[in-house]
Amino acid sequence: MTAIPSQSATPDASASHVDQDPRFSRFIVDLFGVMAYGELSAFERLSSDARFSPTLRDRAALGRLAVIEFEHFEMVSDHLAGMGVDAEEAMTPFQPSIDSFHERTRPADWYESLMKAYVIDAISGDFYKALAGRLDEGTRTLINRIQSADGQGLLQTRLKSALSDDPRLASRLALWGRRLVGEALTQAQRVGIEREFLGGLLFSNANENQEKDMVKLFAQLTRNHSRRMSSLGLTA
Amino acid sequence: MTAIPSQSATPDASASHVDQDPRFSRFIVDLFGVMAYGELSAFERLSSDARFSPTLRDRAALGRLAVIEFEHFEMVSDHLAGMGVDAEEAMTPFQPSIDSFHERTRPADWYESLMKAYVIDAISGDFYKALAGRLDEGTRTLINRIQSADGQGLLQTRLKSALSDDPRLASRLALWGRRLVGEALTQAQRVGIEREFLGGLLFSNANENQEKDMVKLFAQLTRNHSRRMSSLGLTA
Repeated sequence: MTAIPSQSATPDASASHVDQDPRFSRFIVDLFGVMAYGELSAFERLSSDARFSPTLRDRAALGRLAVIEFEHFEMVSDHLAGMGVDAEEAMTPFQPSIDSFHERTRPADWYESLMKAYVIDAISGDFYKALAGRLDEGTRTLINRIQSADGQGLLQTRLKSALSDDPRLASRLALWGRRLVGEALTQAQRVGIEREFLGGLLFSNANENQEKDMVKLFAQLTRNHSRRMSSLGLTA
Repeated sequence: MTAIPSQSATPDASASHVDQDPRFSRFIVDLFGVMAYGELSAFERLSSDARFSPTLRDRAALGRLAVIEFEHFEMVSDHLAGMGVDAEEAMTPFQPSIDSFHERTRPADWYESLMKAYVIDAISGDFYKALAGRLDEGTRTLINRIQSADGQGLLQTRLKSALSDDPRLASRLALWGRRLVGEALTQAQRVGIEREFLGGLLFSNANENQEKDMVKLFAQLTRNHSRRMSSLGLTA
């Protein structure tokens, strides 16, 4: 199987666009490839970090969040398989940049790990949902099911209680949050440039509008992030 | 909630023995406590090790095995909750010895990690199933559902293909297998002594039979292990 479905592949109904335009098919495969690898690596990082939780209850709670990431990874993989695309091949191009993102944002302790999950899950959810709004219904439904912010409530509650137990944590986590969002946006742009990924965002539009829409999207992601930081009592 | 259900707890049907004899209830809580913590820590170790898999396909496959461990952990936790027992409290006594078991058996690479999952899953499955045969039906059903050796086939296939790719791996993995089984049996005995755990094995019998049955059980575990090693072409 190849990462780009060929004309002879038998895509399912939700992938009906795929055969219509090779650029669209390439975009969708890239989108699911980056999502799948993002989920798989989030699962591995979260579950490794879970071990350092202060209590067994926290370990179990973080483990559950990790498992949800894995289930999302499987949903995306299955969707790719339904399109006649091998998930491994679709993920491979994004492996170096996502691995290096994780290397640059290694949490120093369990609280930074919670914060990373809170910030990165939310911002990538926003990002994918913004794309989904411009895509076909099958893709949109899948993305909305996956990016349903399952763990956000739990992470927020746990972070709030940690911040109220130790007020000195606030300045460290505020700084960490800024670093995370900066790295995430840089990462999104880098992937976009490397894979002409964001080009697909406004696929049917003229080139000059693409840049404007990208700027608008990034401004929206930053605003949402600030709101989430505020809800923890932190300055974004 | 306490780790030992009190008379005032409202156990579900499957826990009907619990209120009858405090030693039996203590034994069941210990059994589920050690199983739950074993599953939770196996989940964390397996999913951390998954990251070092040679291919993305292997990472996904090992991730799935880790998720199965987590689901088993949740089944046992739910069962404890149904008995009016807090899973965290039931797990706590076994945390030091299981953590130290994992410290003593840190895999040096991905193949040792596969081997550890293969050997330890199987031997603990055998151990719990041997106990289950002597327990009430609710407990037995839960244990048999959990210890169903889901991942054994996958692990065996993957290990066989690794061994055929690199024959030098055989002597290293044979040695590693012997070390693992030795550590596992030592671990089981230590937990047994510390928590009077194995005493429950033959709960209704006289003391002199307990030792004989323990020896028989350990001999059986060792024989099964040897058979599994042979099936990989390794000497136990």
